[in-house]
Amino acid sequence: MADSKPILYLVKIGGNIVDDEKKLHDFLADFAQIKNMKLLVHGGGKLATRMAQQLNIPQTMVDGRRITDAETLKVVTMVYAGYINKNIVAQLQAGDCNALGLSGADGNIVQAHKRIAGAVSQHDYGFAGDVDAVNVGLLQTLLQSEITPVLCPITHDKKGQLLNTNADTITKELAGALSDSFQVQLIYLFEKAGVLSDAEDENSVIEEITPASYKELKEKNIVFAGMIPKIDNAFAALSAGAAVVTIGKAEDLKQIIVGEKGTRIVAG
Amino acid sequence: MADSKPILYLVKIGGNIVDDEKKLHDFLADFAQIKNMKLLVHGGGKLATRMAQQLNIPQTMVDGRRITDAETLKVVTMVYAGYINKNIVAQLQAGDCNALGLSGADGNIVQAHKRIAGAVSQHDYGFAGDVDAVNVGLLQTLLQSEITPVLCPITHDKKGQLLNTNADTITKELAGALSDSFQVQLIYLFEKAGVLSDAEDENSVIEEITPASYKELKEKNIVFAGMIPKIDNAFAALSAGAAVVTIGKAEDLKQIIVGEKGTRIVAG
Repeated sequence: MADSKPILYLVKIGGNIVDDEKKLHDFLADFAQIKNMKLLVHGGGKLATRMAQQLNIPQTMVDGRRITDAETLKVVTMVYAGYINKNIVAQLQAGDCNALGLSGADGNIVQAHKRIAGAVSQHDYGFAGDVDAVNVGLLQTLLQSEITPVLCPITHDKKGQLLNTNADTITKELAGALSDSFQVQLIYLFEKAGVLSDAEDENSVIEEITPASYKELKEKNIVFAGMIPKIDNAFAALSAGAAVVTIGKAEDLKQIIVGEKGTRIVAG
Repeated sequence: MADSKPILYLVKIGGNIVDDEKKLHDFLADFAQIKNMKLLVHGGGKLATRMAQQLNIPQTMVDGRRITDAETLKVVTMVYAGYINKNIVAQLQAGDCNALGLSGADGNIVQAHKRIAGAVSQHDYGFAGDVDAVNVGLLQTLLQSEITPVLCPITHDKKGQLLNTNADTITKELAGALSDSFQVQLIYLFEKAGVLSDAEDENSVIEEITPASYKELKEKNIVFAGMIPKIDNAFAALSAGAAVVTIGKAEDLKQIIVGEKGTRIVAG
């Protein structure tokens, strides 16, 4: 009886939107108007890096990922859970969307453990958290109270330690955990109109990607670098139970919802 | 039928606890053990001032209050709603207290308006917020779900603007708003064991203050300066409906709860 489950829009925005005041404002106005139940996950953006520079905290990046030492954890907690999260919530409230900002520690919404050096890579990522569990019960209580949860990419280990967790990963985990109770319509928003067959041409959006076509796109080097973890994540969310997964541009949110824009990731 | 209402402990901690890692840890361990429903409000502390200095944001104080310009608002949002709030929540979670951190913007818990220059004083306090309304319904939903709300002193105006609001004031407003549904046991914690009859002697705690004795204590200059707004706030909370108001020291939380320590503010 999958069809009897209520629809839940699970939307993830990245740094390109969070860093741009005007784009963020316009996106939040559109998001606030979604009539169904909805949940927003936001990434970090460049503000944390800028703040770390101003505070003279050296930043180390490995394979495009920030190494979260103790001082950097402090900065990302301030910027993600404080500044960005609360500004998003205040703007959604202004648009009559009853938003409530959460880190993974709040209500034990997302419990994680500190990544063990050598488990994923030989590097020690510091206070990076890999997700163990999502507290679906509390998210249901909030959604049923017509509240829109807004999650930042900070989690905790239930032993008092906050952790920095990739926002795409949190979104995927939420999609899986919420799929038992909701028809999860998952939308990953980034800087492009979708997965492009020609990286230089915004009009070359691939409408649909199946596991078979994905394999081909990778072999032909049409998708590469940063797109691969994004699409991997999208397929993982689909496997975990998401009803629909779309990748697209924040400005196109309304058209993505009605299936007119973006790249749909389908099981094939 | 006031007696049939469930007991709610409403506890406020200030900068002296927030700034001291060990004291904060010990206090949170005690607070987590309160069996009844409970709610924590925390103040700011010196971290925001230190952070503003490191970021070269000049701080202006008028009558002991910080002037919240746009850059300072950014810093206090990061520090109060981000760093302090999430660290408190993570530590309470470690103590098996299902804490959930909130700014006033989250779930529209505390709505305020920007203080108008000249209304309270001739000074323009910048983005300082005076409280208009408390969303009691959502706090009830959370408390009934065995969640412990942890509020930071950031509010919003429901028009997209975050505001900086005094934590004692938020606590008083919460006490009033929650008194219809709960027997509110309000506890203000600060650096002294209570209101002292001799500022130099920690053993000179005044057990009880009535409006009449308060008048006398002020006339004799036994209470003065920073204590006056604290006691005024306590009487205001009592007038607004709090069942019991006690002022004391964080280290004494357990004894304050059983009525063995601190200064009780009573209607007389």
